[in-house]
Amino acid sequence: MTLKFAQRLDWIETSAIRELFKLLGKPGIISFAGGFPDARLFDVAGIAKAGEVALAQDPGGTLQYGATEGYQPLRQQISDWMAARGAPNVGADQLTVTTGSQQALDLIGKTMVSPGDTVIVEGPTFLATIQCFKLYGANVITVPTDAHGADPQALASLIAEHNPKLVYLIPTFGNPSGATLSLERRLEVLRLAVQTQTLLVEDDPYGDLYFDAPPPPSLMALSERVAGSREWLVHCGSLSKILSPGLRVGWLIAPEAMLRNAVMCKQFSDAATSTYAQATAAAYLASGDLAQALARTRPIYAERASAMVTALREEMGEDIEFVAPGGGLFVWARLTRPGANAQTLAQRAIEEGVAFVPGVPFFATNPDAATLRLSFATVDVATIQEGIAKLAKAWRSLSA
Amino acid sequence: MTLKFAQRLDWIETSAIRELFKLLGKPGIISFAGGFPDARLFDVAGIAKAGEVALAQDPGGTLQYGATEGYQPLRQQISDWMAARGAPNVGADQLTVTTGSQQALDLIGKTMVSPGDTVIVEGPTFLATIQCFKLYGANVITVPTDAHGADPQALASLIAEHNPKLVYLIPTFGNPSGATLSLERRLEVLRLAVQTQTLLVEDDPYGDLYFDAPPPPSLMALSERVAGSREWLVHCGSLSKILSPGLRVGWLIAPEAMLRNAVMCKQFSDAATSTYAQATAAAYLASGDLAQALARTRPIYAERASAMVTALREEMGEDIEFVAPGGGLFVWARLTRPGANAQTLAQRAIEEGVAFVPGVPFFATNPDAATLRLSFATVDVATIQEGIAKLAKAWRSLSA
Repeated sequence: MTLKFAQRLDWIETSAIRELFKLLGKPGIISFAGGFPDARLFDVAGIAKAGEVALAQDPGGTLQYGATEGYQPLRQQISDWMAARGAPNVGADQLTVTTGSQQALDLIGKTMVSPGDTVIVEGPTFLATIQCFKLYGANVITVPTDAHGADPQALASLIAEHNPKLVYLIPTFGNPSGATLSLERRLEVLRLAVQTQTLLVEDDPYGDLYFDAPPPPSLMALSERVAGSREWLVHCGSLSKILSPGLRVGWLIAPEAMLRNAVMCKQFSDAATSTYAQATAAAYLASGDLAQALARTRPIYAERASAMVTALREEMGEDIEFVAPGGGLFVWARLTRPGANAQTLAQRAIEEGVAFVPGVPFFATNPDAATLRLSFATVDVATIQEGIAKLAKAWRSLSA
Repeated sequence: MTLKFAQRLDWIETSAIRELFKLLGKPGIISFAGGFPDARLFDVAGIAKAGEVALAQDPGGTLQYGATEGYQPLRQQISDWMAARGAPNVGADQLTVTTGSQQALDLIGKTMVSPGDTVIVEGPTFLATIQCFKLYGANVITVPTDAHGADPQALASLIAEHNPKLVYLIPTFGNPSGATLSLERRLEVLRLAVQTQTLLVEDDPYGDLYFDAPPPPSLMALSERVAGSREWLVHCGSLSKILSPGLRVGWLIAPEAMLRNAVMCKQFSDAATSTYAQATAAAYLASGDLAQALARTRPIYAERASAMVTALREEMGEDIEFVAPGGGLFVWARLTRPGANAQTLAQRAIEEGVAFVPGVPFFATNPDAATLRLSFATVDVATIQEGIAKLAKAWRSLSA
């Protein structure tokens, strides 16, 4: 006899993930496959200093059990950070710190989703969101997206038809799409949430990683302009892409009753997020250095994105289409030749020494096999050019 | 219209928890209510040093995303730590790091428990275990315990009757019971797991906090002596009680297929435990200082436990019964007078300026209203004596 696992494990598709991981780990390969920020850009000295400050100022608070809601000085810093980003309407008590924004997603699922509930996500969206909600039994369906993000009219039809438990969007520099929901669509989506009384989840880990100009205000910031929308709005934030993923500090902003239930669920998920990491993050944010660190990082990512866009156009020409991203970590592209398959290209590309992620697993439904995700974040300009040349060589060898 | 939450929230009883929290937070009160180690005993300088070392030696690994299974140097240190504690049979790849051992419990629930599955726990047991498993739909029932831990004969009957998904025990210095499962019973329970092919979960956060003599070897250590038992054994460990809860570093050791599924679930729970905390913990363990830190801590807890035991006997006499603990953080006691109610006493005690936790919430079934949990861990000897005197005064005023 062997162990009998919980039924929920049957609800997720793990082979796609295992296939992805095989592409990520190969040594000696140029990798556009990751979803990570560049560790070489982390403010190691600043974080080390913040850790020292935290332990010196509040050793007990830094090392003892903490409130499940989060370390209060950090909650205040996050409230201030949201205000600085255009959302002055989020008090420290209206958010809970989470163990990365992945835990915010998990708590949303745990708090809201019963087996059989429908959840609408963008097609494509963050793979771990799909799996996270499916583990709670969600029926995950997709709203079509284009270069300006999710299509509000299609979303309205899907809500009317499916009465979903929630709608999940990455409105700004989406993963994997790179797309940014336009201001007009943001307001439409907020109005739609109110009209249909549908919970709207905004996942916003990339909003600060813009290149030339800031993106439109977040849905949370815009909720001030759409009466009643705050009652239907959830926001997930994170320090992972802008400071360090290793801290595992994210946050969840939610309507009061939902936040209370999410905190109760968190109590039994991990009791609290590491106070050691939280107090370090609080000290770092209090130092005011994050704005400067971002100002150093943005032009580097912008240069890499530009190099990738240029190289793709030069090397692949009309065989590939994409919208140049305005921020974030990703170029989302599509092979234009009829019948082109990005999975086949990925396997051939590995042989040439370059890795990327085929787009199919990012679609909860109706996958587009011609799509692919390329991350420029962790590769320098010369290596990007080399890697895209290898990609083009792989492509030509397939087409021959 | 308001939000409709997931059905699983109806499966747990939150009022008991809220009542408990009301007792914990009052300022100016002598509190025996917590379940925390004493923050004044933390090796703050040692942890600060470990954090510096981690960031200096491996800044990328400390601040970047890490493998869901855990930071490899920490997995190796935990394997070595288990070996030093009598279990040389746990390789680094046979465990996953968890965000505190609370997350180990959550992953056990997520991986194993379908709604309606029966889980057997000690009566009484850790409150957050009961709630954690209930959120996954478990039908939680209790095996009777005495001063030597769970009764194996009663456990055998319950397993035969209920065919449970798993049995959860805190065999060493249990929370709240303070009880330690005897060596003979440990071997019986391991044999029972094999005979009945029942998953056995050992939660062991307190085993290193012994006073005079080490407790019997852990079930994991003893699994070497009972053929086949390792295939049915899960072990949860933690640095929270022996180094710092704020790191949120625990671990889960499980049979291979279960560990693989637990890691997959963890990927969607929080992606990974803070690498910043993990690398700090790894550097601390590598320093070899933990054994010395424990050697400093043990006599302090032993002295406090002794002071509480003595004061209870002097102040309460035959009105209270308990077994003096051999380690851990708790005295579990029972009011002997017929009809005595620890909840009533708790309310009266608060008025006298002393807090403790009534025992009822720790029972998944058949609560004993005369029981109470007293933690001596965070209170110095003189204050323990003062607090127990206040408790006795409250008791006399009720009895008057």
